Amino acid sequence: MRAEPNLHSPGALQAARYAQVRAQTLALAAPLSEADCQVQSMPDTSPTKWHLAHVTWFFETFVLERFERHFRPHHPAFRVLFNSYYNGVGEQHPRPQRGLITRPTLAEVKAYRVAVDERVLALLTRDVPAELAWLVELGLHHEQQHQELLLTDVLHLLSCNPLAPVYRAPWPLAPVSPVPLSWLPSAGGLVQVGHDGQGFAFDNEGPRHLHWLQPHALANRLTTHGEWADFMADGGYRDPRWWLAAGWDWVRSGGIQAPLYWQRQAEGDWCSFTLHGLVAIDPHTPITHISLYEADAYARWASAQWGLPLRLPTEFEWEHAAARLGAAALEAGNFVESQALHPMPVAQAEDDLLQVYGDVWEWTGSSYAAYPGYRSADGAVGEYNGKFMVDQTVLRGGSCATPRSHIRASYRNFFPAGTRWQFNGLRLACDAAG
Amino acid sequence: MRAEPNLHSPGALQAARYAQVRAQTLALAAPLSEADCQVQSMPDTSPTKWHLAHVTWFFETFVLERFERHFRPHHPAFRVLFNSYYNGVGEQHPRPQRGLITRPTLAEVKAYRVAVDERVLALLTRDVPAELAWLVELGLHHEQQHQELLLTDVLHLLSCNPLAPVYRAPWPLAPVSPVPLSWLPSAGGLVQVGHDGQGFAFDNEGPRHLHWLQPHALANRLTTHGEWADFMADGGYRDPRWWLAAGWDWVRSGGIQAPLYWQRQAEGDWCSFTLHGLVAIDPHTPITHISLYEADAYARWASAQWGLPLRLPTEFEWEHAAARLGAAALEAGNFVESQALHPMPVAQAEDDLLQVYGDVWEWTGSSYAAYPGYRSADGAVGEYNGKFMVDQTVLRGGSCATPRSHIRASYRNFFPAGTRWQFNGLRLACDAAG
Amino acid sequence: MRAEPNLHSPGALQAARYAQVRAQTLALAAPLSEADCQVQSMPDTSPTKWHLAHVTWFFETFVLERFERHFRPHHPAFRVLFNSYYNGVGEQHPRPQRGLITRPTLAEVKAYRVAVDERVLALLTRDVPAELAWLVELGLHHEQQHQELLLTDVLHLLSCNPLAPVYRAPWPLAPVSPVPLSWLPSAGGLVQVGHDGQGFAFDNEGPRHLHWLQPHALANRLTTHGEWADFMADGGYRDPRWWLAAGWDWVRSGGIQAPLYWQRQAEGDWCSFTLHGLVAIDPHTPITHISLYEADAYARWASAQWGLPLRLPTEFEWEHAAARLGAAALEAGNFVESQALHPMPVAQAEDDLLQVYGDVWEWTGSSYAAYPGYRSADGAVGEYNGKFMVDQTVLRGGSCATPRSHIRASYRNFFPAGTRWQFNGLRLACDAAG
Amino acid sequence: MRAEPNLHSPGALQAARYAQVRAQTLALAAPLSEADCQVQSMPDTSPTKWHLAHVTWFFETFVLERFERHFRPHHPAFRVLFNSYYNGVGEQHPRPQRGLITRPTLAEVKAYRVAVDERVLALLTRDVPAELAWLVELGLHHEQQHQELLLTDVLHLLSCNPLAPVYRAPWPLAPVSPVPLSWLPSAGGLVQVGHDGQGFAFDNEGPRHLHWLQPHALANRLTTHGEWADFMADGGYRDPRWWLAAGWDWVRSGGIQAPLYWQRQAEGDWCSFTLHGLVAIDPHTPITHISLYEADAYARWASAQWGLPLRLPTEFEWEHAAARLGAAALEAGNFVESQALHPMPVAQAEDDLLQVYGDVWEWTGSSYAAYPGYRSADGAVGEYNGKFMVDQTVLRGGSCATPRSHIRASYRNFFPAGTRWQFNGLRLACDAAG
Repeated sequence: MRAEPNLHSPGALQAARYAQVRAQTLALAAPLSEADCQVQSMPDTSPTKWHLAHVTWFFETFVLERFERHFRPHHPAFRVLFNSYYNGVGEQHPRPQRGLITRPTLAEVKAYRVAVDERVLALLTRDVPAELAWLVELGLHHEQQHQELLLTDVLHLLSCNPLAPVYRAPWPLAPVSPVPLSWLPSAGGLVQVGHDGQGFAFDNEGPRHLHWLQPHALANRLTTHGEWADFMADGGYRDPRWWLAAGWDWVRSGGIQAPLYWQRQAEGDWCSFTLHGLVAIDPHTPITHISLYEADAYARWASAQWGLPLRLPTEFEWEHAAARLGAAALEAGNFVESQALHPMPVAQAEDDLLQVYGDVWEWTGSSYAAYPGYRSADGAVGEYNGKFMVDQTVLRGGSCATPRSHIRASYRNFFPAGTRWQFNGLRLACDAAG
Repeated sequence: MRAEPNLHSPGALQAARYAQVRAQTLALAAPLSEADCQVQSMPDTSPTKWHLAHVTWFFETFVLERFERHFRPHHPAFRVLFNSYYNGVGEQHPRPQRGLITRPTLAEVKAYRVAVDERVLALLTRDVPAELAWLVELGLHHEQQHQELLLTDVLHLLSCNPLAPVYRAPWPLAPVSPVPLSWLPSAGGLVQVGHDGQGFAFDNEGPRHLHWLQPHALANRLTTHGEWADFMADGGYRDPRWWLAAGWDWVRSGGIQAPLYWQRQAEGDWCSFTLHGLVAIDPHTPITHISLYEADAYARWASAQWGLPLRLPTEFEWEHAAARLGAAALEAGNFVESQALHPMPVAQAEDDLLQVYGDVWEWTGSSYAAYPGYRSADGAVGEYNGKFMVDQTVLRGGSCATPRSHIRASYRNFFPAGTRWQFNGLRLACDAAG
Repeated sequence: MRAEPNLHSPGALQAARYAQVRAQTLALAAPLSEADCQVQSMPDTSPTKWHLAHVTWFFETFVLERFERHFRPHHPAFRVLFNSYYNGVGEQHPRPQRGLITRPTLAEVKAYRVAVDERVLALLTRDVPAELAWLVELGLHHEQQHQELLLTDVLHLLSCNPLAPVYRAPWPLAPVSPVPLSWLPSAGGLVQVGHDGQGFAFDNEGPRHLHWLQPHALANRLTTHGEWADFMADGGYRDPRWWLAAGWDWVRSGGIQAPLYWQRQAEGDWCSFTLHGLVAIDPHTPITHISLYEADAYARWASAQWGLPLRLPTEFEWEHAAARLGAAALEAGNFVESQALHPMPVAQAEDDLLQVYGDVWEWTGSSYAAYPGYRSADGAVGEYNGKFMVDQTVLRGGSCATPRSHIRASYRNFFPAGTRWQFNGLRLACDAAG
Repeated sequence: MRAEPNLHSPGALQAARYAQVRAQTLALAAPLSEADCQVQSMPDTSPTKWHLAHVTWFFETFVLERFERHFRPHHPAFRVLFNSYYNGVGEQHPRPQRGLITRPTLAEVKAYRVAVDERVLALLTRDVPAELAWLVELGLHHEQQHQELLLTDVLHLLSCNPLAPVYRAPWPLAPVSPVPLSWLPSAGGLVQVGHDGQGFAFDNEGPRHLHWLQPHALANRLTTHGEWADFMADGGYRDPRWWLAAGWDWVRSGGIQAPLYWQRQAEGDWCSFTLHGLVAIDPHTPITHISLYEADAYARWASAQWGLPLRLPTEFEWEHAAARLGAAALEAGNFVESQALHPMPVAQAEDDLLQVYGDVWEWTGSSYAAYPGYRSADGAVGEYNGKFMVDQTVLRGGSCATPRSHIRASYRNFFPAGTRWQFNGLRLACDAAG
């Protein structure tokens, strides 16, 4: 007689988590029309429908194809159509043309999700080999990344519409008392960085290794819209002294005068387009939708303004501080679960680092590079992270669009220096007096 | 006592025609999903939803705003959003970004149609001044132009999808006996060209004027896919002798090897993507989806091949011949009403010109220019045709995607020389022996 | 005993003309440094050194290779290097990279000229077959075209230099009394146009043929800088009403605010860069360095301004008028021989058309197209004119940079609508009252 | 009575070095024609004439203007014309248009050099303040950088000419015995890196700081053309497994099949364009003219091929090894003084690292970033290095086009990942067994 499945088996736990993550993706798409789900507003973004299909393709390709006894594809054309960038799997539909694929319909893509879900869950009711469990976990973290992208891509799409449509109402802001900027020093020294092997991590978070940190200090909180307004009022976008050469070229060729999604109203005030529609600029919320160039220019401007050797933190300064804070800081973060969908002001002052997790991804001064001894995995799945290790900059900490369970101290996000459609912001760092 | 409306009054006739044309636009969109209606596949095309809204905007802007006593716009933002190119009306939403406007939804656009229809029809139940009648007629002809564009734009969109979706099934082709090419001479001389003032015409069709025609001959039928295959087999796309300089640049920079929508199958045969999906090349159907460059190159190649002074006809050679044929030729044409949605082979040989109307727009050797004495209308509506009179080439005769009631002998279509997504083909002309 | 060459033989006459034209090219290059002769300032222009070599290549390829008994190329690589666009001769060095060829040196190119001159002149001392005479004549007219291009290309190159170098000093302007604009009517009717076969003509000037002209009038003189200043002061470059759609796109994407080479001085006045360096705008000199878009916009603006149905003349209206004027008008023209190198004001009023020849090429409203019955010559030399007959507009009359002996009433110049670096201007035409 | 200048004073020493460096620049330009000195073959390169002027501008702007009592500029326009990228000095002539400035002539630029030399040398005969000495030294190192660029830019220019002109003849290669690849281990640990303050260094070489090195090994010599041929023969350029994502895009969009300057001969063999003209590929010379993408792909391919964890060295692994080798290694390097002007094969095997200095710049795996505590200098001269610290990769060791006195262990060169026109090559590194 066949035993009842043990609901508390690792497979059952993972199945429950699988169901939860998969449902959350659909929930994020729920406020959107079929047309909203179809359109790709720039080559960097993807249609919601494509996100829904691609994360499913990931499970089909890396889990079902590997572990189902008599694997047959759901639809033979999907292998190419919903492959993002895995050359090891084969050809890919050209990225800038993802929005042209009006068929399969949204309903057909949802049916694809249902079919793959059934097949994955069927695998998880049996003995779950470690490799299968790891690939399912990878697929769930992959899907969480696309949940965040779904939101940032929808924000970009809606921002292109002069009618300024609202993804979710209303705007949740409540008045707060501003928290003054202060500096939390670190002595530095030889520290361990990288993932310690407990729980899931992407391959690019390891190997854990030694790193020498200089003495430095970190700002207690994120840079705010109010501080950014000072930078703008002082002509920050018009003065080449503050800018990297590539940043200055970017400002001039793009006619950049403010963060992405800022619009100047007829009467001269700035407002910002958000997932809650057009809103006034709140001075106490963290600045967001800025490029590395802008973050770096701000740090140089603030250095001159305040007479301090300010800069962006390195990714290891950030990680060392975050690792010290532990789980409570993660719990306190403004993640997607808060439904704010926008960075929020600090609720109250404390004597330690604030807003380390959530709100905005923090630009660091670190290029995205392999850790010593890093090797990407064999096969197509090894293309996940390793092949992007050039001309990208590391961001840390997650944002208001990130699922909380997706983030940890060793987590490394990365984007090109000009990226603004993500919830990217900054925290200042300061060299220690020599 | 209020009189019953006279169903045979000009207003009532126009109202009936209005209702019929407006309904036909919706009928053409019926097979499409909301996503199909949303996407713009290249800057030259527009989304179906945009077509549905823009033609409505045309009536709202040029009819309601002018003739309604207490005009109020249906939605203030639509004035910009659905303005195509009328600077006299004001700003326009950027053309390449028409596909990004996911709101208003398709349902809202359909409601916009209903609302405007009611208001236009209300105007037509009263005394209809001549200017109103003319503007409504202009709006209907405008809508018919967009009916054709809707089909060609959907064809382009679906062609971008590797799943090769079908707009309408099945492919209607029946076997025919090929009709040999022959030549119908014209003595030329001083002829009248341009619209004679009977019935509706666009401003660019007049003034009617004298033109001196050289003696010449026209091919009895359109050039076919089979003849095109000979051109290709003889290396036509690889030999600069046949090409205009700009055409040769176009061939080389675009890697052009065949008409648009042709795909070579694994086994080497060519097939073509149509509104009926992928179909085999039929040798007797008229060639279509070619640029002026290709049409001109074919004529030069055929000249050398056959030892005849061949070329494209001038628009006046074509018009003079078409005007002579009269209404029966128009009746015989393969227009959108036949539901073939593809050029069709000649059914049977005759002693006169065949396929003059319908099937494919015929590239001429004439640049699109003002007729002597042409003045565009005052105001924004004067931007309809006149401002495009440079670097475009005239096509004549209508296509399988054109409504029959939209076409006449004096009708001038025009597109840039590289245009291929329209149903464009060719008929050869021959200089008379000196 | 061998007879003395007859100095008055056609060959000797042609040899003398050959020597004169060839020497004139070198004279035009004389004020230039080796570096000036090397650089290509945009893809449309060519380096002086390339012009010097290419016109020589023309004689080598189309004359020596065809008529020398034991032809050997001067340098085997020159066949590709100095071929402009003759596919029938073979590959061509890419046009935008002409300026990168620093070797052969200028001295080597001059030696190439000397060597080819000796060989051509040797052919002309013998019996000269008609084909040889015609090809030499073609080569000389070809060289004259490049003499004009040499000047316009040098003007463009020097205009890119903030030091504003002078090609030839001083500026020759003397004060004049302005001549009022008046209109010279023509009854039109069935007229002959095209070259009549007397003397040399390019193939695109024939066949001579009948053309029906509408009644019209032509302006007595060219449009002036002063009139252009009125257009600008009235916001001509900022009002879409005056512009072709393609012209308005061109204005906006290029940020066009004035004719080419105009610069606004610190104090607000405009000046213009010329072959004499920077000079003040003289109100009575003909406007020049304008595109077809600008010429057309000016005509529409002037129509509205003056309440007249103004437009650009057709090329046949121009030719019909010029042919009537005869040789005296040609003699009166301001051509390169005057050494003004800039359009000049009308010296005195007359009762007939002024400035028909020389000063500036006059934009017409005619697209460049084949005349009825036109066939290009066989072989590579047939690529001279025929393959450019699409998307170009005809200009008539020659300019201050054209050699006088190069021009005639039937001469057709042609350029794309946006061309400004040539000495292009305009004369208005007016529809006759109906 | 005024004392005789002390020839051994620091000022006199620097004056002698000044004269030597300045003369060397002219010597490098000596084989070039005026036209060769004028042309800019791509936006990344500059004309020789511009190099000659810009390095002079550097002394004029940063030395004379700062230290001359009654400074007057040599020519007021040169301040803009020959400013490269110093926003603090003011506007700059647009970089891609440097080749259009045919005036000042080459002779005038040489006169500019003479005039500035006299004025700088006059300053050096007096008391030389430390800041002046430092700025002169900076100017000399700056000029040495441009000496190298002059050569690489001329190589690029000549490579664009199908006549394959020779900068210097003959090709100096003598047969050698190949040296097998071997690995030199390093234990790593906490090491000091960065300039130690002895002698001149650029600001980006400091501050000297601690860095933790993992155990690793470095290849004894540079990767050779013969090894590269193996990579190509194995389909290296066609297999995405070896490439960074950005590298694979670069390969495909650029149609890259071989290092820059390689040409396949009619018979299938590869040759390479060099400053000695076209030469056969020598298997034992170090590979050069490769991008970071190619260097990285080669390391991945070699890893798979040889079963070793190969990669590019970090800049600190390289520096740590080079610092250990000391001055003899620098003396042994193939620098510009050898006049080889091409990387050369290893003359004989040794038990230590070979070819550390000279031959080719070695791509590292390190992004170009600020060292901890780095601050750029105040004022315009602070723009020298600091503003480029994003999206560039560090190269180390100097090349066959570098002056020997310009290089040291701490020297950091940097270029974007796709750069190939410099003498860029690679040395492999290997992770130590765990």
